[in-house]
Amino acid sequence: MHTDLVAALDIGGTKIAGALVDGAGRILVRAQRATPARQDGDTVMRAVQEVLGELTASPLWGRARAVGIGSAGPVDATAGTVSPVNVPGWRDYPLVRRVRAVTGGLPVELIGDGVAITAAEHWQGAARGHANALCMVVSTGVGGGLVLNGRLHPGPTGNAGHIGHISVDLDGDPCPCGARGCVERIASGPNIARRALEGGWRPGPDGDRSAVAVAAAARRGDPVARASFERAARALAAGIAATATLVEIDIAVIGGGVAKAGEVLFTPLRKALTEYATLSFVQRLVVAPARTGTDAGLVGAAAAVLTRTPAGVTAAGV
Amino acid sequence: MHTDLVAALDIGGTKIAGALVDGAGRILVRAQRATPARQDGDTVMRAVQEVLGELTASPLWGRARAVGIGSAGPVDATAGTVSPVNVPGWRDYPLVRRVRAVTGGLPVELIGDGVAITAAEHWQGAARGHANALCMVVSTGVGGGLVLNGRLHPGPTGNAGHIGHISVDLDGDPCPCGARGCVERIASGPNIARRALEGGWRPGPDGDRSAVAVAAAARRGDPVARASFERAARALAAGIAATATLVEIDIAVIGGGVAKAGEVLFTPLRKALTEYATLSFVQRLVVAPARTGTDAGLVGAAAAVLTRTPAGVTAAGV
Repeated sequence: MHTDLVAALDIGGTKIAGALVDGAGRILVRAQRATPARQDGDTVMRAVQEVLGELTASPLWGRARAVGIGSAGPVDATAGTVSPVNVPGWRDYPLVRRVRAVTGGLPVELIGDGVAITAAEHWQGAARGHANALCMVVSTGVGGGLVLNGRLHPGPTGNAGHIGHISVDLDGDPCPCGARGCVERIASGPNIARRALEGGWRPGPDGDRSAVAVAAAARRGDPVARASFERAARALAAGIAATATLVEIDIAVIGGGVAKAGEVLFTPLRKALTEYATLSFVQRLVVAPARTGTDAGLVGAAAAVLTRTPAGVTAAGV
Repeated sequence: MHTDLVAALDIGGTKIAGALVDGAGRILVRAQRATPARQDGDTVMRAVQEVLGELTASPLWGRARAVGIGSAGPVDATAGTVSPVNVPGWRDYPLVRRVRAVTGGLPVELIGDGVAITAAEHWQGAARGHANALCMVVSTGVGGGLVLNGRLHPGPTGNAGHIGHISVDLDGDPCPCGARGCVERIASGPNIARRALEGGWRPGPDGDRSAVAVAAAARRGDPVARASFERAARALAAGIAATATLVEIDIAVIGGGVAKAGEVLFTPLRKALTEYATLSFVQRLVVAPARTGTDAGLVGAAAAVLTRTPAGVTAAGV
């Protein structure tokens, strides 16, 4: 039925967003709370319940057929639990069971936030029409997701496409994840800023020490700022090329705050890709900026439900 | 019908093997020629025709329903062409069309040799029963293939799983493929031997300078030989961990000449994996030696046909 809706949740370290989404990806009702990220697990869950409470109070709730959750990771779709790095009160937290209990037993689909954004970009963004794609978010961290053979590939636990934590520099700097030389350790916003500061770049009168300020300096020609973005681009290129070589993708879509730097990032990235994506079957790989906006997490969580068509949900419009 | 057969071809730089394979993976008829790898393309094709000629002359040929080809890569399954690095006479060579012409128009399935071996390991070897697996060959080169969601994942062009040419050391040594720090550049047999020689290891009275001799020295406790295997193990671990982090695999199967070194390779590999496969969803990843033997390429080429069930072929016994 075209009137079926999905209840979508986008759970991050800063905010918990919820929405009722229709088969065309339109958001009909929305609710939001700040994430009480430093509080205990029950307090965080109460914020989720308040968001769901607003949705279930809507006259449209009766049309909701399933719940899609995109959560900061790691998640475990098999166990239905989440352990978001930035929400220490939730470790192996049984989010799926708790959400099912407050939504009258609707089927619940759980995926990582990078996978959710990938579902949104594949449905409505730059990856639309591509059967094999990598979508990334380069921001405070580096996340991602994969589309393979025309379908979202969440992997058994919902974490696939976690490109931020593949090592492209096996002797490199230790990463908080425990490994070395991860893509995120080199290419995230905070690491771009750190490297620029270490190289002698200094913030302007406004004191902004973020990657946004480094990008502005790079745009004005500051060589240290440019070099820091080029290093990030190199790590991203090695990671994207590795992904293409392993699973054959034809597009890499990049969103998130760092991607907003534009050509300061994309020009050296495209150049570095020619150096790492060398085999014949990956040479046609293209890189594009993401098109979906701040609702991508919600739309993607809904898309993950709609495209996987679990029991009781019609894949309307997808 | 359980009596359907597949004609399988395994095309490498040294030999061209052919077989009629039944739905249980048994080889009923076989033929083989040396690969005239330095000759022109037509001469190489004549060797393929001679192999196929022996198969078509068999009284069992009438039961052949399709042809499966596993070829040294890169291949292009979309175009039906092959460009094996070690067979310079074949560049974008229309192998599928030529094979179809000499087999009476049977459907022909083309995959890379790493993908074929993966199909064999998934059907009959160490990856059996695993829904998500990486299978590798570590030998003169490093190749591989993927099983995702319970099925072979050849990728659109038949080259997916090409783990030998992902960079795990973005500032590392140049690789013949054009990139830097590829897994193969660090972990292949010739590179293990090169690094041992550079470090001061010297071959014994028999003059054997291969990785087999380095493995024997490592087993006797030679520190330079051990260090060279440990470095290879580290690169393999970084590549396997990257694959698991990207697509979620639960087993990595390793075959090929270098894997025959046994614990000299597998002990440091398992240790290094704990350093690179750090995220919760990849920590349970196991590593196992391959179980299929020299017929893996043929059996896998047949399996790729049987499991993909193109028109006219029954997936008997798979």
